[in-house]
Amino acid sequence: MVNAQHAHTEQHLTSSAMLQDIVIGLSDGLTVPFALAAGLSGAVQSSALVITAGLAEVVAGSIAMGLGGYLAGRTEIEHYASELAREHREVRDIPEAERAEVDELLADMGLSPATRAAAVRELTADPEQWVQFMMKYELGLEEPDPKQAPKSAATISLAYALGGLVPLSAYFFTSTPAEGLGWSAVITLLCLLVFGYLKSRMTGQPPVWGALKMATTGALAAAAAFLVARQFS
Amino acid sequence: MVNAQHAHTEQHLTSSAMLQDIVIGLSDGLTVPFALAAGLSGAVQSSALVITAGLAEVVAGSIAMGLGGYLAGRTEIEHYASELAREHREVRDIPEAERAEVDELLADMGLSPATRAAAVRELTADPEQWVQFMMKYELGLEEPDPKQAPKSAATISLAYALGGLVPLSAYFFTSTPAEGLGWSAVITLLCLLVFGYLKSRMTGQPPVWGALKMATTGALAAAAAFLVARQFS
Repeated sequence: MVNAQHAHTEQHLTSSAMLQDIVIGLSDGLTVPFALAAGLSGAVQSSALVITAGLAEVVAGSIAMGLGGYLAGRTEIEHYASELAREHREVRDIPEAERAEVDELLADMGLSPATRAAAVRELTADPEQWVQFMMKYELGLEEPDPKQAPKSAATISLAYALGGLVPLSAYFFTSTPAEGLGWSAVITLLCLLVFGYLKSRMTGQPPVWGALKMATTGALAAAAAFLVARQFS
Repeated sequence: MVNAQHAHTEQHLTSSAMLQDIVIGLSDGLTVPFALAAGLSGAVQSSALVITAGLAEVVAGSIAMGLGGYLAGRTEIEHYASELAREHREVRDIPEAERAEVDELLADMGLSPATRAAAVRELTADPEQWVQFMMKYELGLEEPDPKQAPKSAATISLAYALGGLVPLSAYFFTSTPAEGLGWSAVITLLCLLVFGYLKSRMTGQPPVWGALKMATTGALAAAAAFLVARQFS
């Protein structure tokens, strides 16, 4: 969910990709483990059990997000490489069809036939530049940085785990799940407000509204998990 | 994670956005609830408890993904609208600077100064077309469909919930968590293989490799959750 936006905002922001990954991991890590622990708090009598389930979720989610993200990053690299190879092939084997595609793109931009004729000639003069043009403007693909996928995966994974420990920490220091839930809700919603605020600031959105959105998502997920778990316990 | 790719592949594929959303929700829903249930199976003696925790996770994850996705979609729409307003303002107030930006973009594409002069004149003749050009080629933004965000959120959320019921179903029909885990692993890994295969087919990647990647992610997340939960129980 967050990533489509991630891609957009990167073009506009000075904040590093790493900071974005930290916020993504933290906000997701705060939400789901919080809701799971809240749900179990309404269904079981043992804080130890809430902690065990919470930690299992944190580990599972952290690996799923991290490894899933890493593999998606690798796929993006392979996808780019295979599209690049295809464009090279097409420029070599069916240059007339590719030239027509360039012309069509330029027509979509709003250029006149005369200007297009000159532009097509210049853009297709060098095969390398031609392929780059097709990749960027026909397919909308930017070359992915191969070092970004593992770094991003590790950051998101770690941030998710750290985020998940925030709601669970309350259960370490309290004696009953009900008491744990109270403190867990206070510190987690506070963190969600802060992160929602910071995230919206980073993406240039109204920060107070962003803070409320993130806290509301967490609260609704927790309330629903609580009701369902109580139903089934 | 999945969404950056989602955006790319949409341009190339005939498969509907809905099918993609189903696969996203199902594959995530299969992974994390499976791993959580597996983790708890090594830590508790009661299948009912595994089911309660699993359902709480499914509800929490489903709402977090669905609502989070919906709100991210709304943010994208607002982001597009605010950038559109800014470009309109800039084209009106600082046309010379904006004209220089168009020229720079065309230079990046590889056009000669003479062709650029003609192209800049044509692209900036109509303010509406000029703004559309800046949105698409300077900012790389496509106008989001306002109906897509709620539809996509509902689909992902429902698919996540359905995916999550697959690993949990095994615990309904078995008497101990250990037995449940065995069947849960069999049916879930089978489903992950099938969905990994289909997802890779849809995105034009090698399908067998995609099937293995998805099953491996699920298996690793489950194994890690199992080890951690046992440590803390």
